[in-house]
Amino acid sequence: MSSLVNTLPTLLLTASPEASEASASNGSAILVAVLLSLMVIYLASKVGGELCSRINLPPVLGELLGGVVVGVSALHLLVFPESGLGAENSLLMQAVQAALGLTPDAVQETFAAQSEVISVLAELGVIILLFEIGLESDLSELIRVGPQAAIVAVVGVTVPFVAGTLGLLTLFHVPTVPAIFAGAALTATSIGITAKVLSEIRQLSSSEGQIIIGAAVLDDVLGIIILAVVSSLAKTGEVEVGSVVYLIGGAGVFLVGSIVVGRLVSPLFMGLVKGMQTRGNLLIASLVVMLALAFVGAAIQLEAILGAFTAGLILAETDRAKELEEQVLPLADFLVPIFFVCVGAKTDLSVLNPAVPANREGLVIAGFLIVVAILGKVTSGFAVWGGATKINQLAIGVGMVPRGEVGLVFAAAGSDSGVLPPALDVAIVVMVIITTFVAPPLLRLVFPKGDPTAVAAAVPEPPAP
Amino acid sequence: MSSLVNTLPTLLLTASPEASEASASNGSAILVAVLLSLMVIYLASKVGGELCSRINLPPVLGELLGGVVVGVSALHLLVFPESGLGAENSLLMQAVQAALGLTPDAVQETFAAQSEVISVLAELGVIILLFEIGLESDLSELIRVGPQAAIVAVVGVTVPFVAGTLGLLTLFHVPTVPAIFAGAALTATSIGITAKVLSEIRQLSSSEGQIIIGAAVLDDVLGIIILAVVSSLAKTGEVEVGSVVYLIGGAGVFLVGSIVVGRLVSPLFMGLVKGMQTRGNLLIASLVVMLALAFVGAAIQLEAILGAFTAGLILAETDRAKELEEQVLPLADFLVPIFFVCVGAKTDLSVLNPAVPANREGLVIAGFLIVVAILGKVTSGFAVWGGATKINQLAIGVGMVPRGEVGLVFAAAGSDSGVLPPALDVAIVVMVIITTFVAPPLLRLVFPKGDPTAVAAAVPEPPAP
Repeated sequence: MSSLVNTLPTLLLTASPEASEASASNGSAILVAVLLSLMVIYLASKVGGELCSRINLPPVLGELLGGVVVGVSALHLLVFPESGLGAENSLLMQAVQAALGLTPDAVQETFAAQSEVISVLAELGVIILLFEIGLESDLSELIRVGPQAAIVAVVGVTVPFVAGTLGLLTLFHVPTVPAIFAGAALTATSIGITAKVLSEIRQLSSSEGQIIIGAAVLDDVLGIIILAVVSSLAKTGEVEVGSVVYLIGGAGVFLVGSIVVGRLVSPLFMGLVKGMQTRGNLLIASLVVMLALAFVGAAIQLEAILGAFTAGLILAETDRAKELEEQVLPLADFLVPIFFVCVGAKTDLSVLNPAVPANREGLVIAGFLIVVAILGKVTSGFAVWGGATKINQLAIGVGMVPRGEVGLVFAAAGSDSGVLPPALDVAIVVMVIITTFVAPPLLRLVFPKGDPTAVAAAVPEPPAP
Repeated sequence: MSSLVNTLPTLLLTASPEASEASASNGSAILVAVLLSLMVIYLASKVGGELCSRINLPPVLGELLGGVVVGVSALHLLVFPESGLGAENSLLMQAVQAALGLTPDAVQETFAAQSEVISVLAELGVIILLFEIGLESDLSELIRVGPQAAIVAVVGVTVPFVAGTLGLLTLFHVPTVPAIFAGAALTATSIGITAKVLSEIRQLSSSEGQIIIGAAVLDDVLGIIILAVVSSLAKTGEVEVGSVVYLIGGAGVFLVGSIVVGRLVSPLFMGLVKGMQTRGNLLIASLVVMLALAFVGAAIQLEAILGAFTAGLILAETDRAKELEEQVLPLADFLVPIFFVCVGAKTDLSVLNPAVPANREGLVIAGFLIVVAILGKVTSGFAVWGGATKINQLAIGVGMVPRGEVGLVFAAAGSDSGVLPPALDVAIVVMVIITTFVAPPLLRLVFPKGDPTAVAAAVPEPPAP
């Protein structure tokens, strides 16, 4: 049977004196690997999401855990070269190899390409997620809570940074530069996870939800600036003022500028869309706006997700926002799980194993970092003043807890540059894992059941007829 | 300014003694390149589609032509390594390089990865298209017209193959093996283009539409078998009977088996979906079915699109088919244009230039192949008997005309194996270009305006409120 299965590619390959044929045949192997990866991702996301939803935990936690199960920590179905693994460590690639009879070289190439494709799809997933969050947000509400969000962001960045750095210096006798680096890794909230949970428990448009989103966006910008500062410090021992000024200026001009210009141009844009006759006019035209701002965001060294969020905010102001939101929904359902499952799949839980001696020191430091990471962000919530209505300060602080991928970028940058000793590297990774996985259930807890909107969310969605 | 823009990646890169950092930074370059590519693709598809729709041509022709404009034949924004081009030939990659300050090596790597990602997205596009076509099809109608579809497929494969091969042998004195190869390249209809046009002019569920779809599916299977036969002939001068029997048997077992099993299992499946509580349950569960069948289709050397079509057919029979169709729509709007624009972008019109001496002989042969390709398929329509209702035989024949990517696979396989002389290679490519681009307007012509459904299609869709 297997020799028959392999007949066609063999026919083509052996008939060919050139390499182009091999790459054409490889193209279909890549597609097969991607199809299988997506299948694994959706199964993991749905099984995990359904299980969590049944025990009243946010489905996104289930998607993360589903990713952990299929990923590098357990089943090894979905692994990535970043973990230092090859195709031989991926059960999925071995299945593809067996099905198509690929040569060892072709398998490695296919593995690399499949990883790249899935990673880009995951990034498109978080971009679409932030676009959707932007669409569901209310710009005037966001501007109204702006000062409060700014306080939360600044306090939530400063407290963990200062407390973390000082604690590492005094309690653990870590040298100055690595202590600053690890302190910096405590600063940036993962906007994706928080926003997804808020959306799931229907708290996105509450005052607390909008403060959290606003703060998380500012926090993301601050995180990028801090990364630039500490990287420069690690390299030269000095801070390059020029690049910091550029980043701050760029972020301000980009965020404010694109919203101001976007509001001016959007009536013209909607007129253009109205005149279009072909299918998908509203969705595709809006995606072009999203892609353009995401591209600019990424190209000026900010983040693509900030551009996508801004595009969502701008389009949320138009008269067809509701319609667009409905069309973005299936697209988000298609792409967003890829992001969360991949985050889970890339999470290497082996650093949590205290039986490995190298992990022990890291785990002790991690305990300290986790406390600082959680308390630091919770403090930021209490920095918010109440105003006329009572604000749930605890919920805001908890909403800022997950660190997610941003913390991992710090850990990778630090350990690659040789600044971070292994124990500190492990500690940062553990801190990111714990804050990321603990935040979704905590967030559901701190929004009390008595809250009318929260009650609606606690009831499972009625199955469609 | 540009030195400031480049500060951050430079900081990270120079701080890093290892390669992993470079590839992490490259990851964001790949994302930036993909975002820009998607923007170019959507702009091309919408501008092309809208222009064609205004002069009453099918929008998909506009997407193909939009692709030609941005692709290798004109603007060189979106080019692929298959054309033998590098990043230095891609205006888009040059923009990415300028924006991010990439090294020449990093640009080539980013170009390769971006091409792979976009190619896989295009393939996912045609997979979703066939899934959607399957959902819109009616299995019992397809079975009812099955015998007629089989006649169309067999006649439509045999006539062009025999006429093409004999003509090349007698009129152009081409040796036997290349003549058979070129004759074989005339056989397989591009189901994607035909199905999209039928859907656009709302003829998919007419008897003619279902005969065309059924015939195109069978035709695709026949094309794969013929490719195996002629490749084996080209290599050894003999036909490997085992692999042919395997392909025929595999195709039959797969198509019939998955439909029979699918119909049995689908009530169970819908019950499972009904019990799910998380967002996107119907869409994601259905996509898993689609991915599974597409994977099996590709893994047994048939095609992924056949599996996706079958999955659509099965799910079309369930009670939530309408709801699923609505959710697949935005996903199709997102992915399908990538396929058509890429087909256009990869089309190299320079082979049409008679000023190049090497093209002249090819163009003469191409004229002959085009006549055989069109007349051969039109003949197949007239092989259909009318039955009780009058059937538009001309429309069926014209529906089978576009050759698309399948013909190009033949040309690539033939020229890489050294079987096809350059002139014959050019002739096949020209034949594919002309049949692909001529079929959409022809199809709209042959479905008369007097037809009630066709009239509905001629009126532009009302803009949404």
